[in-house]
Amino acid sequence: MLAPARAGSAVEAATGDAAYLAALLDAEAALVRAQAAVGQAPQEAADAVTAAARADAFDVRDLALRARDGGNPVIPLVADLTAAVARTDPAAAPYVHRGATSQDILDTALMLVAARTLPTITGELACAAESLAELAAAHRSTPMPGRTLTQHAVPTAFGLKAAGWRALILDAHDRLAAVRAALPAQLGGAAGTLAAFDVFDTSDTFDISETFDAQGGALRLLGRFAAETGLAEPDLPWHTLRTPVADLAAALAFCAGALGKLAADVLVLSRTEIGEVAEGDGGGSSAMPHKTNPVRAALIAAAARQAPALAAILVASLAAEDERPAGPWHAEWQPLRELLRIAGGAARQAAELTAGLAVFPERMRENLDATGGLIASERIAAALSPLLGRARAKELLTAAARRAAAERVPLADALAAEEPGLLKKVPEDRLRRLADPAGYLGRAPELTDRALRRLPRTDP
Amino acid sequence: MLAPARAGSAVEAATGDAAYLAALLDAEAALVRAQAAVGQAPQEAADAVTAAARADAFDVRDLALRARDGGNPVIPLVADLTAAVARTDPAAAPYVHRGATSQDILDTALMLVAARTLPTITGELACAAESLAELAAAHRSTPMPGRTLTQHAVPTAFGLKAAGWRALILDAHDRLAAVRAALPAQLGGAAGTLAAFDVFDTSDTFDISETFDAQGGALRLLGRFAAETGLAEPDLPWHTLRTPVADLAAALAFCAGALGKLAADVLVLSRTEIGEVAEGDGGGSSAMPHKTNPVRAALIAAAARQAPALAAILVASLAAEDERPAGPWHAEWQPLRELLRIAGGAARQAAELTAGLAVFPERMRENLDATGGLIASERIAAALSPLLGRARAKELLTAAARRAAAERVPLADALAAEEPGLLKKVPEDRLRRLADPAGYLGRAPELTDRALRRLPRTDP
Amino acid sequence: MLAPARAGSAVEAATGDAAYLAALLDAEAALVRAQAAVGQAPQEAADAVTAAARADAFDVRDLALRARDGGNPVIPLVADLTAAVARTDPAAAPYVHRGATSQDILDTALMLVAARTLPTITGELACAAESLAELAAAHRSTPMPGRTLTQHAVPTAFGLKAAGWRALILDAHDRLAAVRAALPAQLGGAAGTLAAFDVFDTSDTFDISETFDAQGGALRLLGRFAAETGLAEPDLPWHTLRTPVADLAAALAFCAGALGKLAADVLVLSRTEIGEVAEGDGGGSSAMPHKTNPVRAALIAAAARQAPALAAILVASLAAEDERPAGPWHAEWQPLRELLRIAGGAARQAAELTAGLAVFPERMRENLDATGGLIASERIAAALSPLLGRARAKELLTAAARRAAAERVPLADALAAEEPGLLKKVPEDRLRRLADPAGYLGRAPELTDRALRRLPRTDP
Amino acid sequence: MLAPARAGSAVEAATGDAAYLAALLDAEAALVRAQAAVGQAPQEAADAVTAAARADAFDVRDLALRARDGGNPVIPLVADLTAAVARTDPAAAPYVHRGATSQDILDTALMLVAARTLPTITGELACAAESLAELAAAHRSTPMPGRTLTQHAVPTAFGLKAAGWRALILDAHDRLAAVRAALPAQLGGAAGTLAAFDVFDTSDTFDISETFDAQGGALRLLGRFAAETGLAEPDLPWHTLRTPVADLAAALAFCAGALGKLAADVLVLSRTEIGEVAEGDGGGSSAMPHKTNPVRAALIAAAARQAPALAAILVASLAAEDERPAGPWHAEWQPLRELLRIAGGAARQAAELTAGLAVFPERMRENLDATGGLIASERIAAALSPLLGRARAKELLTAAARRAAAERVPLADALAAEEPGLLKKVPEDRLRRLADPAGYLGRAPELTDRALRRLPRTDP
Repeated sequence: MLAPARAGSAVEAATGDAAYLAALLDAEAALVRAQAAVGQAPQEAADAVTAAARADAFDVRDLALRARDGGNPVIPLVADLTAAVARTDPAAAPYVHRGATSQDILDTALMLVAARTLPTITGELACAAESLAELAAAHRSTPMPGRTLTQHAVPTAFGLKAAGWRALILDAHDRLAAVRAALPAQLGGAAGTLAAFDVFDTSDTFDISETFDAQGGALRLLGRFAAETGLAEPDLPWHTLRTPVADLAAALAFCAGALGKLAADVLVLSRTEIGEVAEGDGGGSSAMPHKTNPVRAALIAAAARQAPALAAILVASLAAEDERPAGPWHAEWQPLRELLRIAGGAARQAAELTAGLAVFPERMRENLDATGGLIASERIAAALSPLLGRARAKELLTAAARRAAAERVPLADALAAEEPGLLKKVPEDRLRRLADPAGYLGRAPELTDRALRRLPRTDP
Repeated sequence: MLAPARAGSAVEAATGDAAYLAALLDAEAALVRAQAAVGQAPQEAADAVTAAARADAFDVRDLALRARDGGNPVIPLVADLTAAVARTDPAAAPYVHRGATSQDILDTALMLVAARTLPTITGELACAAESLAELAAAHRSTPMPGRTLTQHAVPTAFGLKAAGWRALILDAHDRLAAVRAALPAQLGGAAGTLAAFDVFDTSDTFDISETFDAQGGALRLLGRFAAETGLAEPDLPWHTLRTPVADLAAALAFCAGALGKLAADVLVLSRTEIGEVAEGDGGGSSAMPHKTNPVRAALIAAAARQAPALAAILVASLAAEDERPAGPWHAEWQPLRELLRIAGGAARQAAELTAGLAVFPERMRENLDATGGLIASERIAAALSPLLGRARAKELLTAAARRAAAERVPLADALAAEEPGLLKKVPEDRLRRLADPAGYLGRAPELTDRALRRLPRTDP
Repeated sequence: MLAPARAGSAVEAATGDAAYLAALLDAEAALVRAQAAVGQAPQEAADAVTAAARADAFDVRDLALRARDGGNPVIPLVADLTAAVARTDPAAAPYVHRGATSQDILDTALMLVAARTLPTITGELACAAESLAELAAAHRSTPMPGRTLTQHAVPTAFGLKAAGWRALILDAHDRLAAVRAALPAQLGGAAGTLAAFDVFDTSDTFDISETFDAQGGALRLLGRFAAETGLAEPDLPWHTLRTPVADLAAALAFCAGALGKLAADVLVLSRTEIGEVAEGDGGGSSAMPHKTNPVRAALIAAAARQAPALAAILVASLAAEDERPAGPWHAEWQPLRELLRIAGGAARQAAELTAGLAVFPERMRENLDATGGLIASERIAAALSPLLGRARAKELLTAAARRAAAERVPLADALAAEEPGLLKKVPEDRLRRLADPAGYLGRAPELTDRALRRLPRTDP
Repeated sequence: MLAPARAGSAVEAATGDAAYLAALLDAEAALVRAQAAVGQAPQEAADAVTAAARADAFDVRDLALRARDGGNPVIPLVADLTAAVARTDPAAAPYVHRGATSQDILDTALMLVAARTLPTITGELACAAESLAELAAAHRSTPMPGRTLTQHAVPTAFGLKAAGWRALILDAHDRLAAVRAALPAQLGGAAGTLAAFDVFDTSDTFDISETFDAQGGALRLLGRFAAETGLAEPDLPWHTLRTPVADLAAALAFCAGALGKLAADVLVLSRTEIGEVAEGDGGGSSAMPHKTNPVRAALIAAAARQAPALAAILVASLAAEDERPAGPWHAEWQPLRELLRIAGGAARQAAELTAGLAVFPERMRENLDATGGLIASERIAAALSPLLGRARAKELLTAAARRAAAERVPLADALAAEEPGLLKKVPEDRLRRLADPAGYLGRAPELTDRALRRLPRTDP
């Protein structure tokens, strides 16, 4: 109820407790299947565990409560899954979670949830980029005030602005896609040595099968497990080598931040006094009938304010002691879920915002003219420098700017008033042309074209 | 499922969507009651709204989904509440949410939820402090190694350690109690001027009633509204003056951090090689039967890693623009809820951990002796300085320490071996006594007594 | 060079390496003086150490380089100070740093630096509050648009806005003053037991003097040491009980955040299109002669963006293991210094900004009128509700608002156009009066008066 | 003085005010050279500016103070550089900073400083990785306790631990190298349109030269400028598209975090009671002669605690409004510098720590044996499961573990005592062999080999 940006979204569903439960069960089932594939478990066991590992057969709330004792939900889940398997195939029950540690399953599930959520987010980003490409192309030469430190500086074009938003969004898209492709499965056993996966419980040997060993043993299992989950195979178990989590966090925080730029600009440009854009279906107010609020931009801005701090928690968890840590790992779960939701919620809002954004070129033009040509003062100063000297030109512009603002007269008139002889040196129409903001867009159109040639990264 | 520290706790329940919904409705009802009290609404309307404002009559999920359009859940809630009131008393319906802005209601609800959650947290902290007082008193002279930069330094007493944990926990308790007492209601109307609360919709005047004005008008309403909610009356509407939120965030982050000190120490002291304490009912392992993990300490440590970053989001939201902001406010809701849960979960874990903590004085003694008296080297250096000179004494101790470690001989022997004439200057039994860690506790017992004299802050 | 907000400021000087060096030396000298006062050292030694402890006699750079080996600057400083004392009074040299641990000295120095810096910061805040009080009083009834979610909402008064800024600044002032008064000295010895302060190196006993013990011993020394430094006496040594650092961090981050609200508003209000305020001596541009940038506000805004994260580092350091920790303590030094500088730089900028802030009531009035009376739509809706019904009134206002915006006609005309019979029910002049923003300030003036009655906290 | 990790380091020098000044001047000179190359400025001007742009000719402190007015140091620097050029070649003076905005120069300088600092950092990381490769190879089969949640879990090998540290360090190395290669120059002019670079101040035209335009104009200048600086050419001016800064921040925070894992482990393993490793030249103590502190690890741990929060500031600055923002940009400068220093200091400490790390296999063996074989309980449970059933095997191990710990007897004896018939089913020597930790390393050696095959990324 406190997170309208993502309420009811696909990302919310993909990161709910039910989704984590399903991912945990998928990890358990993938493990037995992989063990069967390398000859460590009978295929019947793999089939039985896979059949039993259906999320709707388990009680999420009850598992959560029982997670308190051991500090994670895998311990009670293994108990329930083993019991469920035992009901249908008692011989298969001992193969549940065999050799694994809780963290193998939970880390794999965290990655599965991320892997299932990220395509939704990148999809929303691709939509937003598409909408922005259209806006940028349509407005490649639409003049508007360029603003720096909140003040009109020189003109720019709305197309360049939209192209810049798109460039950042593509940066976010590509980072997330790269991270998605690299998300690894986790398998290491209690201390990351894979030791328990080499142990056979055949009563006559207690020893590792030589055949199994010759075929690569537990290392081969690692690869097979990754394949069964659809995740990447890690070089090493990463219980305390948390690069995947840190990379995911950085990419998600980047995503929220990148969208935050879009939001920051929309919030400025839709201010009542500026009015250059509006959210197509802006939110109403509970009290004021006339308001259409830039609600989506506000929600995205809120996301951009939260994500960096959450990512910082996850990056700090890199400093995890021992083979499996007491605290840093536990500190990852909620912030990682929340980051997926924040980035996902922001991406959804951005897709909707960009699809419906109303652009008002005439207000841009009015705003450009509001300073009576002052916005072209940089250009005028450059043009007058050879005539008056650079220092005098700048001084004159400063004085004329003050006069134009105070008396609300056009800049050309203010210049003439400040420097009576000026019109003898520069024809008046030239002076007015120099002061026309629409003629001073620089390379905004070409930069827009250049930026639009970039396409989003595609992954197989 | 990803937050075992608080699963099933009172704090979790007190911060759930249902609790926020109840608080929103309480705020709406309090407003009409306050308006009735100052003569702005009929008492019947107040009664009707109060009767209708029962959380179980509303659909949390549906409200959350409808919150998307306007960016907050108050807008759809007002619609539903108005409809509910209209069903029983049509004449009362127009008095729902009259004059208020969404933020009045949501901010008040945020404070109500905090006000209802904090006593649970301070209660858990008081329990933990009580348990620690007992431990500290019982062990005021129990010697153990003082450790600095991970190394044995000089001896300390376990009682002082427990008293230190308690002191930090009391600091947290008192800060939260102080914040609790100051949590304000919010009422300002659209731009914080209380303007709409002065408006009367009596058709013949369109104007403010002079009687109402003479009685203090909307300012009096502000005080009455605060009284109806049980919260403090603010000096000013604080839509963008977010001291209450920043203070709450700071106190909650402090609480998690303070408990993090306890956890950090328990994690060290319960290490297999150290074994000086153990969680009474430590968590089991999914794979290793012999392990009893310091699960509660790990969960507290995880809380301490998350809270500061969440508080940073809330402190950053102080920089909120305008009369009501687009982003900073929206960025507060989830982190504030999460902070309450993190601090609350950690406090519960700490209460349980301290109640059941097992202390092993004999292991402390063994560890003290493990360095063969080295831990008293500071004292020996001080004692030998007048005999040998300060520099030589330090040099000798350094050499003897190396030798004692390398040869695993008692320090007294190593000293004699390094400085053959030493036993002529210092009797051997005195040297051994100097090297006895238990005799070198300093003022640990008196400091413990002193710290235990402090009591938790009590609020009327 | 990268921190113009504080370049050349008193705060920068008070937090430079030279200031820390002086504070370290002050702490060492205070310790010997305190030891002399309780009979643990000859007065001559106290005099000699105090005389030698002059910062200009030591080489900051060299100390910094030699700090690497031991991980802190106290170790080489003690060596140099001892040597300096030995040159003038060899008998006094052994009394340098006697019984202390590096952290006793460094923590005390950190607190001394804070204690010396905070009055400058609170002084700047008091100046800013004073300027704002004048602005608030002068503009208690100056109408301006109240803005919510970036849109005009209902009118407010500039005085209320300034009073709100002041209220936040007083909150910051009072928190810093309270923290300042509580900053404690640090003294505990190697493991916080004060053990080494009880040891006497008189060759015939090696034991604690009974007289000393009877007089309170090292506990009395703790109080005396605090008195010599001018800091508060702590209940316990706080090597790993970091409440003072966390409180300081929270108050400094709050200060930067509170000023960030002022900056956020100034940045909005000085936008070219809004122009309701201007920094009196706004910064120029390297390229554009006409610009006067809100530079001070930008620098304050930058401070507000940095402080919360730095404070988070310090709050996280609460979770410090053992008697003295390996990392959390070391992580405090730079962020604490930087926080002092950031808050101090922002406070200085705020004092200057508020002293010179230009306010333009006529632009406020123009902006109020820009929406043709729309900004009073809340009031009109309330007034029309009894005539038309609440729902129809709201619907009508929404339609009229759209029309007024599209056709740029006054709201009264738009209303009449949308509801042809309206003027029969409401006299036209009444409608126009209802739509006058200046008549709809609510309780802004009274709230301003009320807020101005609050005075800054004064400390003895 | 408060940052011993980097005092006197190459990174400190490379990020000092002098280095930033030099980079600013390099950026100014590169601009004129690039303008000369594309025909916008005479070669003589380029030569004159390049000659004048020597850092030692400017007063850093004075520039810093004068940076206050405009909010950045470029404005006074341009004045001084122009004056310096004018002294040698008056005709060249107008070409200084022509068309550029302050942010063009400062951003380019920030990137230059990063580009010059990063190779030092990656060099230190490569050294550390090299040392760790040797340690890992030497200890690929050295058994030690694997620790999880602070407790002994199952054995591992020190080689695998070292290989894991190296893997993280290579991750950091490669991320920094990739970021280094992509650092872009900045050039856009006042609003990022490159407009002013198209303006010619030839008095007879005031217009853009057609020749210049035909050759690509300002877009060509952008490429040439990048080439002159040695930085990458950006697709778009990135005044408010801060991907380069966010990427740099993420990689530097990752670096500190990755090294934090090494530090966390070294701090645990060098604890007095554990003693499995020691810093070769650990720091001394000011009071306790016997201590050799893991100072480098503590300093690295401190770095890892600071970096994520600083990176969060920089990621948050992605949400920068307008064409150039008021606050987000200013908030980047100090944290970016500090991040370079923190990561650089940590990398230097890590290179030294790993080069000198002493490893004590015999202490590892003692610690393995300290639990009487308990550490192999996972394996024993697996072996006994077929004989006793899985549940009974686990139950038996749990009971035996408790007994072994309480009575301090070997696990085999405890098992026999708990299950009297066990030795009939399992030969005693087999039971003892199963309980031998050194035989239960799993795939630690092969995983080590596999990880060591990875080499650091090399860039052309």
